[in-house]
Amino acid sequence: MAETRTTTTEEIVTGICRAAREASARMGRAGTAEKNAALAAMAGGLRERAEWLKEENRRDLEAAASKGLSGAMLDRLTLTDARIEQMAAGIEEVVALPDPVGEVEKMWRRPNDLWVGKMRIPLGVIGIIYESRPNVTADAAALCIKSGNAVILRGGSEAIFSNTAIARILRDAMLHADLPADAVSVIERTDREAIDRMLAAEEYIDLIIPRGGEGLIRSVAEKSRIPVIKHYKGVCHIYVDEGADTGQAVAICVNAKVQRPGVCNAMETLLVHEKAAGEFLPAVSAPLREKGVELRGCPRTLSLVPWAKPASAEDWGTEYLDLILAVRVVPSMDEAILHIRRHGSLHTEAILTKDHARAMRFLRDVDSSLVLVNASTRFNDGFQLGLGAEIGISTTKIHAFGPMGLTELTTTKFIAFGDGQVRT
Amino acid sequence: MAETRTTTTEEIVTGICRAAREASARMGRAGTAEKNAALAAMAGGLRERAEWLKEENRRDLEAAASKGLSGAMLDRLTLTDARIEQMAAGIEEVVALPDPVGEVEKMWRRPNDLWVGKMRIPLGVIGIIYESRPNVTADAAALCIKSGNAVILRGGSEAIFSNTAIARILRDAMLHADLPADAVSVIERTDREAIDRMLAAEEYIDLIIPRGGEGLIRSVAEKSRIPVIKHYKGVCHIYVDEGADTGQAVAICVNAKVQRPGVCNAMETLLVHEKAAGEFLPAVSAPLREKGVELRGCPRTLSLVPWAKPASAEDWGTEYLDLILAVRVVPSMDEAILHIRRHGSLHTEAILTKDHARAMRFLRDVDSSLVLVNASTRFNDGFQLGLGAEIGISTTKIHAFGPMGLTELTTTKFIAFGDGQVRT
Repeated sequence: MAETRTTTTEEIVTGICRAAREASARMGRAGTAEKNAALAAMAGGLRERAEWLKEENRRDLEAAASKGLSGAMLDRLTLTDARIEQMAAGIEEVVALPDPVGEVEKMWRRPNDLWVGKMRIPLGVIGIIYESRPNVTADAAALCIKSGNAVILRGGSEAIFSNTAIARILRDAMLHADLPADAVSVIERTDREAIDRMLAAEEYIDLIIPRGGEGLIRSVAEKSRIPVIKHYKGVCHIYVDEGADTGQAVAICVNAKVQRPGVCNAMETLLVHEKAAGEFLPAVSAPLREKGVELRGCPRTLSLVPWAKPASAEDWGTEYLDLILAVRVVPSMDEAILHIRRHGSLHTEAILTKDHARAMRFLRDVDSSLVLVNASTRFNDGFQLGLGAEIGISTTKIHAFGPMGLTELTTTKFIAFGDGQVRT
Repeated sequence: MAETRTTTTEEIVTGICRAAREASARMGRAGTAEKNAALAAMAGGLRERAEWLKEENRRDLEAAASKGLSGAMLDRLTLTDARIEQMAAGIEEVVALPDPVGEVEKMWRRPNDLWVGKMRIPLGVIGIIYESRPNVTADAAALCIKSGNAVILRGGSEAIFSNTAIARILRDAMLHADLPADAVSVIERTDREAIDRMLAAEEYIDLIIPRGGEGLIRSVAEKSRIPVIKHYKGVCHIYVDEGADTGQAVAICVNAKVQRPGVCNAMETLLVHEKAAGEFLPAVSAPLREKGVELRGCPRTLSLVPWAKPASAEDWGTEYLDLILAVRVVPSMDEAILHIRRHGSLHTEAILTKDHARAMRFLRDVDSSLVLVNASTRFNDGFQLGLGAEIGISTTKIHAFGPMGLTELTTTKFIAFGDGQVRT
């Protein structure tokens, strides 16, 4: 990897892909203890080489500053001692998670006494294409390694020195644990061709996960010949039903909107049954206003909350990621479900109700990656749902829908034990 | 659909896709009884309108004959009374299968008393692109409907009249059961553009399944913006271990090769441990010769089976789909596993052995969609493994690996029951 100057992007990417495929066979056989040893060495390496890491990170920061990147961008790029410690601690959390590889959930006996089951196996080689934050390099690699995969990482050009330095530490840790370094690779080329070559390497890579803005994800999905799991935006809705508990509904809605407005599982649109609106909207608008939330309402909302601004057609289906909330009064739950189908993003939806039948119907009829009854949308997260660390929240229905933890980085093969069975 | 002459391919395909997406919402809510009523009406309709179906089929046959299609192709295209009855009976088998939609395998309680589970839901809209045999229209539609999906079918141009007629019967049956006819559509345009439009309709279609030759599958996978589950070839291997039971191994190998040589789960390469070869190869070659199987062997094989032909490098990894078998003597199980990794197609592999430790290691280290111990590769089939009817055998690791039955045409969403939980 030191001689990249004399070789083409195609040669580099193909070389990395081929080495990753080779390493994946060994990774698939690696025991839990071996993989955990590598992860522990990764965490240790990040802590021990924190000074060097910060030096390499400074090279990125200087380049970014000279390019005039915004303060927010520079902040996301910066590796501090606290952030390096966070990366190391994050890897140690993955050590503590159960290893899904080799799990056989059940076996069944066929009439001919063939004993059949499904065994969980790694996917093979996973390609991650991401932007800015260098911590993704460590987080994603840890999950891929624990689930027995090899991983090829292609971060943004603005973090190239940081990502390469982190990868070097992770690769050293793999060798330290007698596992192949090539199971963790960073593509050091920052040209677009490197991504294109990766997306065409279908014989070497089993799954592509793009992490970043919608533009990046769309362009990856369009070009890739390899299956892509998309993590699109979250336009999350809460529907407050007729007769909902007002106090509980206010607490949940305030939490879903303001506890962390910049994330994908924050509420973006509030739908309120017309029979609940008269009591609920004034009750919820007071604390929202206090927290600085701007409301954009339908005409009925405006009549109940005079300080709200009128919503335009573009407000339905918008992911604000900010202290803004679209509010609409609906004549029925069916209308709320239709609104969600039309404007939602399949991410997270909640119903707040006391009525059991309507709760169950909403749960059944809304097909988002998480549907909640009487709880905040903010729970759509691997840790909160009990899966442990996650690589993202998939809004693709295929393979993994919702938070992607270790299990979702694996697949199953069928196994069968016989004693001479043949087909007749 | 009667006015296709005045509209463009783009308009037709987009219209069908949009209608299917609309219908999929209703299908997702359909109960098992409703779906079964539609399937029963489909089977009844095929039987009642068998004469008309054969008339429409004759139009395809006449066109095919005038184009000079081969006898084998014409045979695959022909709908006889027996084949129509087979289609109807096949649909009735799907009626009898359990409905996966709504299944919640387990739920768990979080420390905050949020009760979380995963519920099985339909994928939405499934696109099937296939060649020749018109029965695929009925088989695939039945599986998609039972699993709560809408389906868009695009068969080969040579079967256009047959496919359109079958679709009309299936759509009438949907209406008969008060379900939307648009949940089953055949794209009647036979130009390539129709496929291209379908593969770009990512906002309407959730999954594409191509069924046919390798060329069709590759071209679909390359062009599609929608996830594709590939059903590639089966280059299936059997490894006969040192000390295997010769009689049992001979019976299994003969079954795997000759019981139905033209299918994807037939054995194509036999690997024999060098310590087993002296006894086993002469023993297995006699019945294989009797059945008309041509052996293509490595030099060691040729020394033990004088009538075998020498294998060339291309024989390893070839899917003959014929009475031909490649045979190689290997020095160890590791060499056999390496051979499979290099030349296999991830489809089906078996080890024949008495040794428990080696059986378990082979099972773990070979990542094919089905790995068997002491049984024929011919068991890689939805019915044989106990899943019921299947839409094909996936060699894509993502989402579904191996036989794809009803469950594999669904996905899961997370559900959560709360009583006011907020995130802190």
